[in-house]
Amino acid sequence: MPTNANRKITLKSRPVGEPSLEHFELVEGEVPEPGEGQVLLRTLWLSLDPYMRGRMSDAKSYAKPVEIGEAMVGGTISEVVASHHSKFAAGDIVSAFAGWQDYALSDGQGVFKLDPSRAPVQSYLGVLGMPGLTGYTGLLNIGEPKAGETVVVAAAAGPVGSMVGQIARIKGCRAVGIAGGAEKCRYLTDELGFDVAVDHRSPTLKADLKAACPNGIDVYFENVGGAVFDAVLPLLNDFARVPVCGLIANYNMTELPPGPDRTAALMRNVLTKRLRLQGFIVTDYAAQTPQFLKEVGGWLKEGKIKHREDIVEGLENAPQAFLGLLKGKNFGKLLVKVA
Amino acid sequence: MPTNANRKITLKSRPVGEPSLEHFELVEGEVPEPGEGQVLLRTLWLSLDPYMRGRMSDAKSYAKPVEIGEAMVGGTISEVVASHHSKFAAGDIVSAFAGWQDYALSDGQGVFKLDPSRAPVQSYLGVLGMPGLTGYTGLLNIGEPKAGETVVVAAAAGPVGSMVGQIARIKGCRAVGIAGGAEKCRYLTDELGFDVAVDHRSPTLKADLKAACPNGIDVYFENVGGAVFDAVLPLLNDFARVPVCGLIANYNMTELPPGPDRTAALMRNVLTKRLRLQGFIVTDYAAQTPQFLKEVGGWLKEGKIKHREDIVEGLENAPQAFLGLLKGKNFGKLLVKVA
Repeated sequence: MPTNANRKITLKSRPVGEPSLEHFELVEGEVPEPGEGQVLLRTLWLSLDPYMRGRMSDAKSYAKPVEIGEAMVGGTISEVVASHHSKFAAGDIVSAFAGWQDYALSDGQGVFKLDPSRAPVQSYLGVLGMPGLTGYTGLLNIGEPKAGETVVVAAAAGPVGSMVGQIARIKGCRAVGIAGGAEKCRYLTDELGFDVAVDHRSPTLKADLKAACPNGIDVYFENVGGAVFDAVLPLLNDFARVPVCGLIANYNMTELPPGPDRTAALMRNVLTKRLRLQGFIVTDYAAQTPQFLKEVGGWLKEGKIKHREDIVEGLENAPQAFLGLLKGKNFGKLLVKVA
Repeated sequence: MPTNANRKITLKSRPVGEPSLEHFELVEGEVPEPGEGQVLLRTLWLSLDPYMRGRMSDAKSYAKPVEIGEAMVGGTISEVVASHHSKFAAGDIVSAFAGWQDYALSDGQGVFKLDPSRAPVQSYLGVLGMPGLTGYTGLLNIGEPKAGETVVVAAAAGPVGSMVGQIARIKGCRAVGIAGGAEKCRYLTDELGFDVAVDHRSPTLKADLKAACPNGIDVYFENVGGAVFDAVLPLLNDFARVPVCGLIANYNMTELPPGPDRTAALMRNVLTKRLRLQGFIVTDYAAQTPQFLKEVGGWLKEGKIKHREDIVEGLENAPQAFLGLLKGKNFGKLLVKVA
């Protein structure tokens, strides 16, 4: 681990369709010096998440794209190496948004001190961090699950989906998880307590999901889109809620798929079944973080919420790991151990 | 007007695509005799509404289809001709759901006595009836308009759209109405007080709507679909609400339009703009009828809500009038004066 150089993984060019290693570049530079009011952060853990695919494109979205030649953005657990900021001292462990690099400067905005004795610090990138908060707020605020209802979530072995399914169980719902492959499906039912798991690679996905949801679907937490949504739509009950959190199946789409144009069919379902489709971004619910930490932190201690981390060693391996994430190759919250 | 025969307009066959006169049949029969607990109703006014197109099809929907050979369904203002029901007496004027016929029996379910001195009785099929309640409940419960926001509604000269636009104005919003033709557009701005009207027949619809909504769209009350929705979607602001009330542009669709399949584009908008698309049927909000009658009744008296009726004489002319409704040929709430 170099101590006198700052390695960054930058966006070299914008992918059209599926990204590959050539779109990233590892560059080395000086470790920056903190100015007045700044802290120098050293990255301990980097979080890799599907939304980063969006930041590689310059299509209009809810956040600005990463510029070519700039470090990829990302949530981190960092150590304060030097501080000219009244709120932070050298040695503090913080959650930050320092990106794909060894070192970063910050003015303290969006940087929060962690208590490493409460939970392993990297938990604050997963089960107690952005993905956990995403599942928690999206399910509770938009999904509004009621006891006895059926909640379906895809990418269910990931940090968002596993939070959604486990909270659904806590709320007395039937939790149906969709994941890729037998191993993840077993994990959902045997470890996380989902009622049923459905393999999205199955050629009989539609029939499998129907069998898993004998009373239809009341809440579908949407984070994939594509064929899974097609299987879900006919099963949605009247007044079903669909928090739209992500659409990973579409992220590499370079043009709309061939016809027919099924928009009218979707809208007809929205109307006749009185569906609620509502998009959200986790930052919309940032104010609920204290409540989330208290409630989910409690469930974690009680063993009601379990989680799994998929750890990759070394910043240089972040691009490969991220490409795998987009294909569902990770198993659990994907983290890069940087230092 | 025959007094000893009951004329019914029945569904002769199910249309595939656009309905025409051949799908209806006028049949005459006996005036039925009310049994114990029943009332005999004579239809004074029949309401014609777009949802009736849905009842002509046997595709699964929120309500059962009309059976072949049965009278078309519809809301009516009726007179009680004979009563064996403790709540009703001969001579009572009621709102009912007696359908496209001169006479009907009822057990009193869904039948409400009206006070003809309060408002012209046919108002209870329009501004104070189902269409008014539809606009009122959909806009307020799902649209949640806030002062200063922009509310867009299509079919704005109709009874639902004109209610939506006028309430939007009362709530301090910019009201933008979309209608077909210069006369209806003038009516929206000059009579109903909409801020701007846009003609959906204009070849520059997209640009016209954009110019009409310099601050984007916060609430789009969806009752048409098709090209209007295509013009609206790019203008929707973050956190916009879309109550989905109807999709008249799609009602005669026999197959999905050619590609590309734009579902993914719609879902991407839902996600990145955090849109809320929510379908509703007026009966979902039946419990809000007393509050609606009180509030809108008050606005009517104060002249804050205006309305317009398009009256067709004679039950035998109902099919032709209904076909015109589906093409936007009516101007105001379409009513058939039956007796």
